[in-house]
Amino acid sequence: MHSVHAIALNHHNQLVLLDQRKLPHQADYLILDDYHTIARAITDMVVRGAPAIGITAAYGIAICAARQPNELNNAFTVLAESRPTAVNLFWALKRMQNLADKTPAAQLAQTLMAEAKAIHAEDIQFNKAMGDFGASLITADSTVYTHCNAGALATGGYGTALGVIRSAFAQGKIKQAYAGETRPWLQGARLTAWELMQENIPVKLSCEGASGQLFRKGEVNWVIVGADRITAQGHVANKIGTYNLAVLARHHGVKFMVAAPSSTFDLSLQHGDEIPIEDRPMHEVTSLNGQQIAPQGCEAINPSFDVTPPELIDAIVCEKGIILPPFKQNILALLGD
Amino acid sequence: MHSVHAIALNHHNQLVLLDQRKLPHQADYLILDDYHTIARAITDMVVRGAPAIGITAAYGIAICAARQPNELNNAFTVLAESRPTAVNLFWALKRMQNLADKTPAAQLAQTLMAEAKAIHAEDIQFNKAMGDFGASLITADSTVYTHCNAGALATGGYGTALGVIRSAFAQGKIKQAYAGETRPWLQGARLTAWELMQENIPVKLSCEGASGQLFRKGEVNWVIVGADRITAQGHVANKIGTYNLAVLARHHGVKFMVAAPSSTFDLSLQHGDEIPIEDRPMHEVTSLNGQQIAPQGCEAINPSFDVTPPELIDAIVCEKGIILPPFKQNILALLGD
Repeated sequence: MHSVHAIALNHHNQLVLLDQRKLPHQADYLILDDYHTIARAITDMVVRGAPAIGITAAYGIAICAARQPNELNNAFTVLAESRPTAVNLFWALKRMQNLADKTPAAQLAQTLMAEAKAIHAEDIQFNKAMGDFGASLITADSTVYTHCNAGALATGGYGTALGVIRSAFAQGKIKQAYAGETRPWLQGARLTAWELMQENIPVKLSCEGASGQLFRKGEVNWVIVGADRITAQGHVANKIGTYNLAVLARHHGVKFMVAAPSSTFDLSLQHGDEIPIEDRPMHEVTSLNGQQIAPQGCEAINPSFDVTPPELIDAIVCEKGIILPPFKQNILALLGD
Repeated sequence: MHSVHAIALNHHNQLVLLDQRKLPHQADYLILDDYHTIARAITDMVVRGAPAIGITAAYGIAICAARQPNELNNAFTVLAESRPTAVNLFWALKRMQNLADKTPAAQLAQTLMAEAKAIHAEDIQFNKAMGDFGASLITADSTVYTHCNAGALATGGYGTALGVIRSAFAQGKIKQAYAGETRPWLQGARLTAWELMQENIPVKLSCEGASGQLFRKGEVNWVIVGADRITAQGHVANKIGTYNLAVLARHHGVKFMVAAPSSTFDLSLQHGDEIPIEDRPMHEVTSLNGQQIAPQGCEAINPSFDVTPPELIDAIVCEKGIILPPFKQNILALLGD
């Protein structure tokens, strides 16, 4: 299976990030070898997608340990502040921190680099596992609708929501995919459409406003999305616009699936209101690709994520299996200690 | 009250249209004096908004009668084909046709020009009447959310949905307005935000995907939109994305108001499925201002309108009054012959 490499190491153990802001028209790679620029790449959305952010942060720590070992504590702080919503970031940093705490200094660089690579490799493996779990829920001749980009670009290399779509397509179950364009960053138009076209999966782009009529006409079987954080009760923080799709899906009897690795679950949180939601700058809404759209001085809201409550979700799949309602009990049963 | 002039006649009885595709950054005016270019201006969205299209078509007929009287029958045909969904277009053409049929040739040009001007003047007057009716439904300290542009630019000069917001604001009832940006043409970002800023009405722009979270937080009291066609039972065709807002509004207990002149009602139609929905070119979704967004060759859906069923609507206001559910009976009572 062809995959896009959004995150890689070169022979010098520098981090090579595909600049996703320029896709699909340009494939520029940034070569980064210090944690400050890696954190900035996360903040500025060179790399985005909850699992991909976690992997990138892990590499940031490993690179710091190799090149600036005296600054390792600061690297944990700086990387943790790069974006607030996706929990995979904090999960990856905690895993690196726990290992750093018990590793002798002489082995730190090597050990942390091996761990970052393991996090990356596991993510791909977990994506494939959850792809198969998710695909098992999809029946033949289905049409699916996805939002934002939860594909190879958002992960270690296969995709969460797009992993499910890839696996189901490989099984001959998908006749059509729709990609919601996902303002303001247009990840659906720029990234998801591109990934699906590369896989020869039939995809049509849809403005977000067109989703309801599509559902009303019975043209969609499943909405499938990724997640940035999932609470113990099954509240799902994901890209702004996800919640609208969940309400619309339920209104029309369309099924709603969330695909995310177990590192996306934050069992310390019960309710969605406890998830910090990143508010991004107004200019991302008032302009597009550097072109001002709205009048000069126009204000805008730009919450980057929303929270979908468990009662609007039909299934959550992770690498360990399929979680069905009631989510509170079933999340605990599958993922609790 | 300051108003934007989207449609005017100059001293030579040429039609002067503000090119709305270039707003808010450029105010270019096109001077048109034959029905072919006037029809093309409608098709190409130089002028848009159901009432504005009707007024423009009426002027197109009047200008044809003055300059190319032998082509008047063809002008009716060409203008009727310019856009399919808004019924105000056909209403205005029928009104002009009925008058043309009974007017002697010698008086045709003068009579039809007077009629086009009357249609234009009535529209402004009707907008103000419906603005007051709509405002009477809004309570103090309200926050409203509108979609697309149903303002001065979409009408003869005051606005339908924005007319209600203007009137309610003038009465001190509105503390905040939200404009949904309205992909793919971004009428909310480009036109509605601009109009509201010119009126000093506090406005924030919102991506369509952010509407649900706004409603969930209880931050919106009324969604107020215009209409392109309303059936006898109260199905409302309006800009794509309107239906999503109606479903989301109902889910959260937010009230939903439609403001449209009586010429928007098509009592020959019962159900929304009978309304022809314009599908516009894919490139409007895959690109923006000439910049390709999506990958080359990417397909897209681009239905320009959707239909909101009466059960999701709380009130329809027109110049004759307020229509409340049950719409089938109450539309007939107010507007039936």
